[in-house]
Amino acid sequence: MPSADPTIPTPLVDPADPVFRAHLGGKLAGVATQPLRDAHDLSLLYTPGVAKVSLAIAADPKLAQTYTSRRNTVAVVSDGTAVLGLGDIGPLAAMPVMEGKAVLFKHFAGVDAVPLCMESGTVEELVEAVARVAPTYGGINLEDISAPRCFEIERRLKERLDIPVFHDDQHGTAIVTLAGLLNAARVVGRELASLRVVVAGAGAAGVAVAKILLLAGVRDVVVTDSRGTLHAGREDLAEHKAELVRLTNPRGVAGGIEQALDGADVYVGVSGGTVPEAYLTRMSPDAMIFALANPDPEVHPEVAHRHARVVATGRSDFPNQINNVLAFPGIFRGALDSGAPAITEAMKLAAAHAIAGLVERPTPDHVVPSVFDPRVAPAVAAAVTSAV
Amino acid sequence: MPSADPTIPTPLVDPADPVFRAHLGGKLAGVATQPLRDAHDLSLLYTPGVAKVSLAIAADPKLAQTYTSRRNTVAVVSDGTAVLGLGDIGPLAAMPVMEGKAVLFKHFAGVDAVPLCMESGTVEELVEAVARVAPTYGGINLEDISAPRCFEIERRLKERLDIPVFHDDQHGTAIVTLAGLLNAARVVGRELASLRVVVAGAGAAGVAVAKILLLAGVRDVVVTDSRGTLHAGREDLAEHKAELVRLTNPRGVAGGIEQALDGADVYVGVSGGTVPEAYLTRMSPDAMIFALANPDPEVHPEVAHRHARVVATGRSDFPNQINNVLAFPGIFRGALDSGAPAITEAMKLAAAHAIAGLVERPTPDHVVPSVFDPRVAPAVAAAVTSAV
Repeated sequence: MPSADPTIPTPLVDPADPVFRAHLGGKLAGVATQPLRDAHDLSLLYTPGVAKVSLAIAADPKLAQTYTSRRNTVAVVSDGTAVLGLGDIGPLAAMPVMEGKAVLFKHFAGVDAVPLCMESGTVEELVEAVARVAPTYGGINLEDISAPRCFEIERRLKERLDIPVFHDDQHGTAIVTLAGLLNAARVVGRELASLRVVVAGAGAAGVAVAKILLLAGVRDVVVTDSRGTLHAGREDLAEHKAELVRLTNPRGVAGGIEQALDGADVYVGVSGGTVPEAYLTRMSPDAMIFALANPDPEVHPEVAHRHARVVATGRSDFPNQINNVLAFPGIFRGALDSGAPAITEAMKLAAAHAIAGLVERPTPDHVVPSVFDPRVAPAVAAAVTSAV
Repeated sequence: MPSADPTIPTPLVDPADPVFRAHLGGKLAGVATQPLRDAHDLSLLYTPGVAKVSLAIAADPKLAQTYTSRRNTVAVVSDGTAVLGLGDIGPLAAMPVMEGKAVLFKHFAGVDAVPLCMESGTVEELVEAVARVAPTYGGINLEDISAPRCFEIERRLKERLDIPVFHDDQHGTAIVTLAGLLNAARVVGRELASLRVVVAGAGAAGVAVAKILLLAGVRDVVVTDSRGTLHAGREDLAEHKAELVRLTNPRGVAGGIEQALDGADVYVGVSGGTVPEAYLTRMSPDAMIFALANPDPEVHPEVAHRHARVVATGRSDFPNQINNVLAFPGIFRGALDSGAPAITEAMKLAAAHAIAGLVERPTPDHVVPSVFDPRVAPAVAAAVTSAV
């Protein structure tokens, strides 16, 4: 088989594989928005003309939003420590994922995203480096950074920068999960405030899902990690989990996922683990199961359907795909267009409601729009803008 | 007059000016190199397919050169401390210049360059930040960073990184100046080894011009700064100037530019100052004057011609434009294509000879090719590759 690069022997590479073909040479390129035909064009786009624009921006930095690419450019930042389900594979191996993310930003919302893959280091080192180069960008999308570092990195960058900083693994997942749950609750005729929700997984996604559900009006959320439910009796909890104990588990449920699911209305799996079918029998009638681990859901949708009215996964080959791409392109489109200095909780809620609202008549197999529904990004962007 | 952005009152902005029109919204955009038409394309460009590519790169980092955009991407890095002739105007005001540079990289050599404008700081802080994000890029073009910081920043990044690091204000200027001088010497029938050269200016460009001329065989180079010639008697010299004292001024010329020009064959002005016509009368017959300050040459070409056979400037509206764009696109094209870990002195010399070689019959008004000569970048890239 002919190799794309004869110097590469690794058996992991199959140059004939459509995936490797699609990645040959990378998935991103740059283009000039202006013609460069002659010395006159050159004098406009570069010296001496460009000096006028630089001087104007030096006098009024706001002009950078009007006369540079910054306004429409988002950095997709990762240190490669938690890439997809692959773990800590480093910044070079993270590049194809960040490029793919950039392709989605452009395709769905016209946002010029660029990968920014960094050598990992301390929270301090990563925050310093991102803040240092931030003048180049109109927004920062954090991606695939390991927990709990991701929480502190995002918090400190939000404090320090006056542009939107958004950790998609947290908030993208949370927004789309909430959108799906809003419609799932309509399908079964329930109010969010009356639901008992179990969030299996206390990593980046689990923490953000729990918080946005509380923000949206859910009162009874129980979060589990690998050692069981998060409750006041736990003395082994990192800061981000201890914070969740203060916000969740009002009934003080102890034990494991089995106890947590006893009488639960909603299961949200963002754990990457599995949940035995026997536990699901303990859920209430009209249960809703969001098994979001990729590529292997915590419970197979066919099994889940025996115990739930609504089943959602992260996969495109089953109904109700909970996919971040429904959120992040429109989120940043709206944030950039409105010049918002940050992405607030109100903007996240508005985005979730906008996504849910695009499904006119929710059914058990249709609680979120299609990833390719062209209405999604504009609707999310408009909702975000209106919530600024 | 209608404003591009009604919130902007600054009198420095004329939205009707073709320069501002050309900059509206920025000069750069990103594009995907692959079609994204449906869920199948999505599964190739992003999850789940992309995981295969990431795993392969994790196993063999060299694959990042084949399967990511890194291979063809150069960061144009500036902290905005020495932008054009404008001084320290900051990273936001530097953006239009770095974007323009990126447009030239793409237009002349197909290199995908991206601005990376940074908050300024200590040498240590800038080196740390650039090194941290370096995995994203196949090369680093340093731009408009103030001297003497630029020397140490480049040196330390070259030590630390295994990709080309090139400070264009130094080496681009030096390469094109050498190219022009090679042909100017042919015009007047002189050998480089026999020339007395005065370099007026001991900043980034002056230091690099002096060094490359010595490397190319010039034996008698006298460098001047605002206080006169650099000679062993000077006790006020920063490290980069003290180093030049050890390399230059073999006759120990003291005094100012006037004394330095006494009997000189070549004047290279990279000072931004001016040189009185009276001083030029002291130069030898068949003198060569390269007055490269922009937009105002150290001496007007018409005045210079009264005392020199060959006159070059940095301007496009006079003959013999010494423009970095003749060098940097082809330099990086060659370095990226050859996978060179650095840009060596041999590669710089080869580039200068390649540029000079494109002028078949040098004349006093034609010692360098046109900026728009399509043969230049490929010739420079080929020369750089052959010198790896």
